[in-house]
Amino acid sequence: MASILDGIDSPEQLQQFSISELTQLAEEIRERLITVLSANGGHLGPNLGVVELTIALHYVFRTPADSLLFDVSHQAYVHKLLTGRRERFHTIRTPGGLNGFMLRTESEHDCYGAGHAGTALSAALGMAVARDRMGGSEHVVAVAGDAAFTCGITYEALNNIAHHTKRLIVILNDNEWSIDKNVGAIATYLNKIVTSPQFDHIHDRAAKFVEKLGGVTALRVARKAEEVAKGMLWPSVIFEELGLKYFGPIDGHDIPTLINTLEFLKKQDRPVLLHVLTQKGRGFEPAIQKQKKFHGLGPYDPETGETKPLGRRTYSEVFADTMVKLAAADPKVVAITAAMPNGTALDRFQPHHPDRYFDVGIAEEHAVLFAAGLAVKGYKPFCAIYSTFLQRAFDPIVHDVCLQNLPVVFCMDRGGLSSDDGPTHHGLFDISYLRSIPNMVHMTPKDEDELADMLFTASQWNGPIAVRYPRGLGPGTPVKDVPRPIPIGKAEVLQHGDHDRVAIFALGSLVPMAEEIARKLEGEGVAAAVINARFAKPIDVGMVEFFASKVDVILTMEDHVLRGGFGSAVLEELNHLGLNTPVVRIGWPDNFIEHGKLDELRARYGIRPEAAIEKLRPYLKVAQPQRV
Amino acid sequence: MASILDGIDSPEQLQQFSISELTQLAEEIRERLITVLSANGGHLGPNLGVVELTIALHYVFRTPADSLLFDVSHQAYVHKLLTGRRERFHTIRTPGGLNGFMLRTESEHDCYGAGHAGTALSAALGMAVARDRMGGSEHVVAVAGDAAFTCGITYEALNNIAHHTKRLIVILNDNEWSIDKNVGAIATYLNKIVTSPQFDHIHDRAAKFVEKLGGVTALRVARKAEEVAKGMLWPSVIFEELGLKYFGPIDGHDIPTLINTLEFLKKQDRPVLLHVLTQKGRGFEPAIQKQKKFHGLGPYDPETGETKPLGRRTYSEVFADTMVKLAAADPKVVAITAAMPNGTALDRFQPHHPDRYFDVGIAEEHAVLFAAGLAVKGYKPFCAIYSTFLQRAFDPIVHDVCLQNLPVVFCMDRGGLSSDDGPTHHGLFDISYLRSIPNMVHMTPKDEDELADMLFTASQWNGPIAVRYPRGLGPGTPVKDVPRPIPIGKAEVLQHGDHDRVAIFALGSLVPMAEEIARKLEGEGVAAAVINARFAKPIDVGMVEFFASKVDVILTMEDHVLRGGFGSAVLEELNHLGLNTPVVRIGWPDNFIEHGKLDELRARYGIRPEAAIEKLRPYLKVAQPQRV
Repeated sequence: MASILDGIDSPEQLQQFSISELTQLAEEIRERLITVLSANGGHLGPNLGVVELTIALHYVFRTPADSLLFDVSHQAYVHKLLTGRRERFHTIRTPGGLNGFMLRTESEHDCYGAGHAGTALSAALGMAVARDRMGGSEHVVAVAGDAAFTCGITYEALNNIAHHTKRLIVILNDNEWSIDKNVGAIATYLNKIVTSPQFDHIHDRAAKFVEKLGGVTALRVARKAEEVAKGMLWPSVIFEELGLKYFGPIDGHDIPTLINTLEFLKKQDRPVLLHVLTQKGRGFEPAIQKQKKFHGLGPYDPETGETKPLGRRTYSEVFADTMVKLAAADPKVVAITAAMPNGTALDRFQPHHPDRYFDVGIAEEHAVLFAAGLAVKGYKPFCAIYSTFLQRAFDPIVHDVCLQNLPVVFCMDRGGLSSDDGPTHHGLFDISYLRSIPNMVHMTPKDEDELADMLFTASQWNGPIAVRYPRGLGPGTPVKDVPRPIPIGKAEVLQHGDHDRVAIFALGSLVPMAEEIARKLEGEGVAAAVINARFAKPIDVGMVEFFASKVDVILTMEDHVLRGGFGSAVLEELNHLGLNTPVVRIGWPDNFIEHGKLDELRARYGIRPEAAIEKLRPYLKVAQPQRV
Repeated sequence: MASILDGIDSPEQLQQFSISELTQLAEEIRERLITVLSANGGHLGPNLGVVELTIALHYVFRTPADSLLFDVSHQAYVHKLLTGRRERFHTIRTPGGLNGFMLRTESEHDCYGAGHAGTALSAALGMAVARDRMGGSEHVVAVAGDAAFTCGITYEALNNIAHHTKRLIVILNDNEWSIDKNVGAIATYLNKIVTSPQFDHIHDRAAKFVEKLGGVTALRVARKAEEVAKGMLWPSVIFEELGLKYFGPIDGHDIPTLINTLEFLKKQDRPVLLHVLTQKGRGFEPAIQKQKKFHGLGPYDPETGETKPLGRRTYSEVFADTMVKLAAADPKVVAITAAMPNGTALDRFQPHHPDRYFDVGIAEEHAVLFAAGLAVKGYKPFCAIYSTFLQRAFDPIVHDVCLQNLPVVFCMDRGGLSSDDGPTHHGLFDISYLRSIPNMVHMTPKDEDELADMLFTASQWNGPIAVRYPRGLGPGTPVKDVPRPIPIGKAEVLQHGDHDRVAIFALGSLVPMAEEIARKLEGEGVAAAVINARFAKPIDVGMVEFFASKVDVILTMEDHVLRGGFGSAVLEELNHLGLNTPVVRIGWPDNFIEHGKLDELRARYGIRPEAAIEKLRPYLKVAQPQRV
């Protein structure tokens, strides 16, 4: 049988196909997803779930004239396959290849980029209002998962939509999962709609109704819609009260129903919400069985879904295992995640301390405020939130935690480059945005054991404290049985001698590179001290002062942007001390960094020993007499 | 008649009084509020609205054992009067006096501080969960205005409450206003409840019901409650679906009904929401007539409510008037406020361009995303959000606006110290949190005319751009008829000569102080250049380089924290240039700054000419030969 997929260069071609051909296309897309992602990794489960929905959307709507937004957009792979990126699809998430999310710079069909949840409805409303003002006739369609409905921004958008436009289509892609199973009242509510005794009936009626739409006039359609809507009204009151006409739930894998319903919704003159039921991982048994694993993952066997074990624990796992111990030792320790038990590895913590584990949904602001409330009453909350997602909670961190000086611990996974994911997921700003806040402490461990020590230290500290650690594997340092407290604001000298001409202050994952630089300099006859800086706030001022008055040049190294980062903090301290020792700073430049392989990206942006040494050279004074 | 208020040193004394005495107390409190605030300024309207509610809350609950949270807490003056701060109440908002918001450090009755909206429910849930875990019996009560229900965080909390506790009392204080009239679907929804034909009936039944509660057993109460609740159910579905039992609406000025209802709610074993109707400004006719004005204001005449005109336009007003012109000239210019049309002065813009004015509620994240959507379609959105509130939108600024390089303009009113309000309202972090984001431009004008020029410049710029300006009056510089574009990244030399030994780079409101310093130095025979820095990003590198290689010392001045601020950006540029000219940085230290008078606070923290000159002195080299 000839491949339909391989003939599609542009989404308007979908119109040529019959329903049975579109069904075949869906199968081809599934096969392509399973094969390509088995090599590249990626968000398999979510994309398998939206194959038919995406086909139907592109059948009914015309991008780029119509605007199609996907919330988070990790589920936009099918959209990419259908919008002229089929031939490059095998490059997804590889260096120089397609990004794993929608990007305005990648295609005119990507009208809005994303990577964080909860943004689509608000942005879509902006586009709809712009369209209305310009008298445009194009459609604006926002597809958001049920998880996005645990996020406050989605609600802020819902509160505004009906007030500002008459034409906006929201698709609620309900698969019951965010990355993990969804939590909270809204999940219960959606489940109630779906499992209500009236559901089958409603579903049938809705399906039959839309099938019949073909020949009738617009007026009749509208009247009929009203009747049907009334029959479906009762479980949908929340959305109706917020001013969106609710339709559904319909089967998200039934292409004709999807097409007919979307054609109907196109003609509505009021904002609508269509509730679509999909199955995450559809068509790939391992992904259905292991929803969490297949939300997003690395390479796997395309037959069995097996992945290669990493061999040792990731930073996330060391974090979670340490939390288990800390909670065992201190009944006041609790752990909070914002819908990322798997990503943060807190799913390893939960079975040990189920009643001290809180998944609050994609609700980072609430997570931090909830933690603040717990802290007021004497608890020791650890908020495990990726560096990039903690940006969401910046204000509660300032206004609630730091201003009130409450002992909340921020555990920032993916601190530094999150290489395969790209700019929406890099955690490159947290030092800048946290170190300007009074009362905050900011730590970075050089290895897994030090992460455990820092978590223990945080559990003993009576104020706001943050620890960032990178994605994936650390150097493999064994973790001691009993963690040791680290004095706040104290750096660790890893090597130094009487004749040091360079002092390298390195943070976290760059400590090994600092040691490599020291070895290379040693090879050139230049002695260098290596300091594991540990704290971006408070900086170890004594240590900076000691080395600044001793060496020719200081080198700072951080997996973070240079603007406002650790190196900048060292400059501030030297300025405060009135010392003018030259400083060379290594870190990320003032650009958004693309996705790619960590080593390649570091090399491209000068985060490598050779580049650092070249920058140091002008500051090295004439050779000092060597020790005899 | 003896004053009841003047005998109250602790809230448990309220129990001694009859309803008629409590009613007298309410009148005394109103009088006190009107008198004290006529001299001190403050949030008169909101506090006049919650007099009876606060009395009833303290009659029924026992702080500090019970935890009472007020959202935003600008309406906590009555709470302060009743909780041992009566004698100091005349000092509210004055230097060294009571803060205008709740502060944990001010009283044990203030269990949670606030100043930004939407935090109370989340923090209260944290406290309730902590209480449950410890087996405590105390109550946790969160009072939030209807405006807080336009904020996404409140919804995130509602989505979590029923899942995590069985005992939490939420009071929805519905006065139809945030600071301005509330907007959006939720406001319409609440209004529908209140104005429904069934309302009077419901209200009567509720009132009668709670009056009868006295003698019956707990079980009967619960059963009876169920019946009544069913009768009241229909308009309350949103809250019910989210898992909170809804009660109300009840009259928030009827003390016995309030007391009886709260006594009843105390005994519930599920989370409850009580809808209370209050009148903002109650008891003071000018405040009822002019709701917006009396939300929060400066001194006024306690008889007439008249305030003294300021004589000239504030920065906010210059902003709004310039927006009127820009919008007239460019049909793509639109203005967005997050529930602050009065505070941002956009209420002056609205009548001129009603269809290009968007009030989105207390929803800063949505505001920025909505702007991003408009920008995608070719519009030029100006988001007018105070510096401190823009912290809420940090992630959308990074992830949506800057990453996609969209032309959204951020107009940050209250950039710098918001002196009377205190630490929750100071806008002291925006340079730090914005300048680390790629693609962002950050400007500060030295006067009103330059603000107009910068807004014009922003309207021409094709990327993210922010302008901060201080609260209140500027120096009074007349605004030109036709604004002039300012080259991005170009500073302005205000004075310099051939023999400059100091170069002062000053931002915004500190330019006049820079000029004063230059005059004083001149008096000592030290010539100083004065540069209006304008841009915190991009810094005028050429200008920095020019002066750095010329003078003994650079002085940077900013109304912002030193960590990561403008001075720090200058250090980074000098570091990048390899120049080691000494730099003295003047700005706010790494503490939260209390409320007070601007000049006093500046003096206390060394932001004054004398302190700056003392810091410069060690770097001044021996006198250069003077010009002859």
